[in-house]
Amino acid sequence: MSAKAIQIYDTTLRDGSQGEGVSFSLQDKLSIARRLAETGIDFIEGGYPLSNEKDVAFFEQIRKDDLGGSKICAFGMTRRRSMKAADDPGMQALVAAQTPCITLVGKTWDYHATEVLRVSLDENLAMIGESTEFLAQSADVIYDAEHFFDGFKANPDYAIDTLKAAASAGAKWLVFCDTNGGTLPEEVADITAKAVNWLSAYGVQIGIHTHNDGELAVANSLAAVDAGATQVQGTINGIGERCGNADLISVMANLAIKKTGYTVLDGRPLTSLTELSRFVYETANLQLRGGQPFVGQSAFAHKGGMHVHAINKAASTYEHIDPAVVGNERRILVSELSGRSNIEAVASQHNIADDKELMNRILAEVVKRENQGYQYENANASFNLLIRRLSETYTPHFNAIKYRIVAGDRDRANSTVFAEAVIKLVVGETLWFDAAEGHGPVDALDAALRKALVDTYPCLNEMRLIDYKVRVVDSGAGTAASIRVNIESGDKDETWGTIGVSENIIEASWQALNDAVEYKLHKEDQKNA
Amino acid sequence: MSAKAIQIYDTTLRDGSQGEGVSFSLQDKLSIARRLAETGIDFIEGGYPLSNEKDVAFFEQIRKDDLGGSKICAFGMTRRRSMKAADDPGMQALVAAQTPCITLVGKTWDYHATEVLRVSLDENLAMIGESTEFLAQSADVIYDAEHFFDGFKANPDYAIDTLKAAASAGAKWLVFCDTNGGTLPEEVADITAKAVNWLSAYGVQIGIHTHNDGELAVANSLAAVDAGATQVQGTINGIGERCGNADLISVMANLAIKKTGYTVLDGRPLTSLTELSRFVYETANLQLRGGQPFVGQSAFAHKGGMHVHAINKAASTYEHIDPAVVGNERRILVSELSGRSNIEAVASQHNIADDKELMNRILAEVVKRENQGYQYENANASFNLLIRRLSETYTPHFNAIKYRIVAGDRDRANSTVFAEAVIKLVVGETLWFDAAEGHGPVDALDAALRKALVDTYPCLNEMRLIDYKVRVVDSGAGTAASIRVNIESGDKDETWGTIGVSENIIEASWQALNDAVEYKLHKEDQKNA
Repeated sequence: MSAKAIQIYDTTLRDGSQGEGVSFSLQDKLSIARRLAETGIDFIEGGYPLSNEKDVAFFEQIRKDDLGGSKICAFGMTRRRSMKAADDPGMQALVAAQTPCITLVGKTWDYHATEVLRVSLDENLAMIGESTEFLAQSADVIYDAEHFFDGFKANPDYAIDTLKAAASAGAKWLVFCDTNGGTLPEEVADITAKAVNWLSAYGVQIGIHTHNDGELAVANSLAAVDAGATQVQGTINGIGERCGNADLISVMANLAIKKTGYTVLDGRPLTSLTELSRFVYETANLQLRGGQPFVGQSAFAHKGGMHVHAINKAASTYEHIDPAVVGNERRILVSELSGRSNIEAVASQHNIADDKELMNRILAEVVKRENQGYQYENANASFNLLIRRLSETYTPHFNAIKYRIVAGDRDRANSTVFAEAVIKLVVGETLWFDAAEGHGPVDALDAALRKALVDTYPCLNEMRLIDYKVRVVDSGAGTAASIRVNIESGDKDETWGTIGVSENIIEASWQALNDAVEYKLHKEDQKNA
Repeated sequence: MSAKAIQIYDTTLRDGSQGEGVSFSLQDKLSIARRLAETGIDFIEGGYPLSNEKDVAFFEQIRKDDLGGSKICAFGMTRRRSMKAADDPGMQALVAAQTPCITLVGKTWDYHATEVLRVSLDENLAMIGESTEFLAQSADVIYDAEHFFDGFKANPDYAIDTLKAAASAGAKWLVFCDTNGGTLPEEVADITAKAVNWLSAYGVQIGIHTHNDGELAVANSLAAVDAGATQVQGTINGIGERCGNADLISVMANLAIKKTGYTVLDGRPLTSLTELSRFVYETANLQLRGGQPFVGQSAFAHKGGMHVHAINKAASTYEHIDPAVVGNERRILVSELSGRSNIEAVASQHNIADDKELMNRILAEVVKRENQGYQYENANASFNLLIRRLSETYTPHFNAIKYRIVAGDRDRANSTVFAEAVIKLVVGETLWFDAAEGHGPVDALDAALRKALVDTYPCLNEMRLIDYKVRVVDSGAGTAASIRVNIESGDKDETWGTIGVSENIIEASWQALNDAVEYKLHKEDQKNA
């Protein structure tokens, strides 16, 4: 039997934008839609054209693009009560969006119709049927049955009636929504199978739309597919309200790579998923989730020495798939739990694994530094620089001579907190002595360092600090203990981590800042080489 | 039929510490173990006593605690090849840990035994049987069958033989581990049901241990329970290597609240789960995951206007459970979560719970401060002082006027890092202006503060700083973001936490130091009253 094609429906731009801290500009929406189309996503829900100027503009602009086989969908609710569909401004806005598909959401749960919408059960059926019929004249209608599973559990006959109303009126797809995200996989499997059977006479296709409130959104999507659904709705990275929607990345990877009998994206490879995931995070200005399945930075990261030992012998012992299949890569973390295998694995990426003498020096230095509190697993850039320094293939771009920060509160009653930094450094033959103010001492140091270097190295304008973390290494000794600072920096292409350790938090921050800048300058050299 | 009790086995301190960026101090491990015991977790895996001094010290110290019904487990591997179990240093270290339970991990997958371990299949069985038999003389043995599902798929007979070897030798539990995290729920259900059946003659109980590489760890845990497992292994917040372990928070909530027929934690309420989750994040110095199911800050946050409207009419339309059941809160009513319950708990200690006007003022202040980045879960002393200040039952022991720190490196080539602090404060009528040096700026501030106060308050000699933690609150803005400092202080009787928040790390530290000292002085007054 040939594999069954499962259609992927993305609602990152609509349901995803309901997530806390998510806000897309028009340009963001256009660039994400284009990227989704390049990936081969079947349906791209663009937004809610009623009462949203940005979404109206989105539909106007995206219409001019050639999106290959991807179809743009406009989203809206059934008509208001006691009104003709053609007269309803929501219906008119949906038609005006001129999309090949329209996604219409309606009420399935009797309780929801009567208690929240305050309409009779018959009027709700009429709203669904008449809205579908009106919209089906202009576009393919995808009917999203809100609260389908809760509605079915409360009153299965009425829930199925709402679906039949949409199907009879011309909907091509009926989508079962677990709006609260609280349904269990066995319930999704059972109810979907029953509903698919009861609706088989209508010739419609079935979709599934889940939320992650029980941490089961992906499992629920897969259960529905096994029970007959052929469309999965979700968002990239699972962003969305509350705990988010089903993460389409995990859904696609599980369907195409892990399960048998299904294809997605017309059978294309999934090698662009990692890039797609990071692109959406970056565009939405959200933090990456390191542990995200399949595409996270830690998804194939190995820390335990035994695991690394095993990985080098047989990757399948600790990797459920080849990371390259989803465009991700294996990372070997250097940490207190790691042995020689970890370091050798990293060194081989630098093509120095054959130099045994150098390898021994690196190992000795890493052990010494780990005893001082350095930990390189979140500091790939500092580790890279360490290897370069030890392999003597390294010329620093600047030499710091001294620095000083002053911080305090000039007047407690009026809280006038301040921070200033002074630094002295040499670039080539030139001595730079600069000062800057900042929100805090590290910000001031960063500002002074850039001020001294930016004339020589304008690429530093592209670089920004993303995260700053501090931890006491030996927490038995209070503020006199060693302090470890991790700084994460980034430019438009990538992010990199650096580390500093000292009893003095300012000194530790200064080390990490120096490495962050040095790594950026080194990257730039390689780019221009 | 009465509900079936499912045992919860926590491995946050061992498997969780394999997570990227996770590193627990001894004090962290002890305080997490104690919190897990308070929650009622059945088994608490403390670590790996072989080759890890910190874990050895952990077992020595935790042995002195009364942990109620919770059992501490030491973790280790089967004996080395061609050696008696009694002679193996790993076996000896496990016995020396003197825990009531020992968790022994062994190889199930023929490929893993022959290709990675390089032992014959018979020797692997002997290693499992003899190790179990040796350990069972000292403790209850929980046998973790590594790669159980992959092993079963490759060679079911051999996989079952490894389990029988452990069961015959006296293991009380056999735990099926999805070590790679790549197994699908239907496979877990099918294989678990078969294995449970085949092992039924041995009178052992079955556990499940899953990883989240396919975003299915929770679904897989639930599937195994439905197939007969009565123990679930995982970590708090799902921290762990790669994509993490099964999140015990979601597992417990689904078993006890969503599914029928199961109880966890001896039927206790799950109202402490939200606090437990945040405590572990804070202790591990990890960012909270806002969208985390059940306990995340966004898990019951409502953004869409329609949703908020519906929520006000009927909460169940957009909430799958009552958030209070897991100690969480809806975000549209009171902006922050454990705020109110904390306030009520502390207020009742101060006999002010009846003063509604004061309670409202405290609530408003907490909401305001939480929006600025304050979080009082690890800062009980600052919270106590906040209530005293607002209830106007409070006379400060000193008034800080100003402070200043200078830190830097006088000469990079000879690394002469320094830190100095100057402070000015008033005690009663007396003005103190003092300076001190320190290992870093916070240490210098602490020294100067004590110097100014110790003549008046000699009890400060008994107080010491135990831990110092820093985190960026809005990590999107690099070093210019708000910084939250937590300081843990102690004397011979107890420890207490304080907090400071500012864009400037020195100012945040100063706030936390001031509260730490003020709380100690307040305690002293009460003792002498």
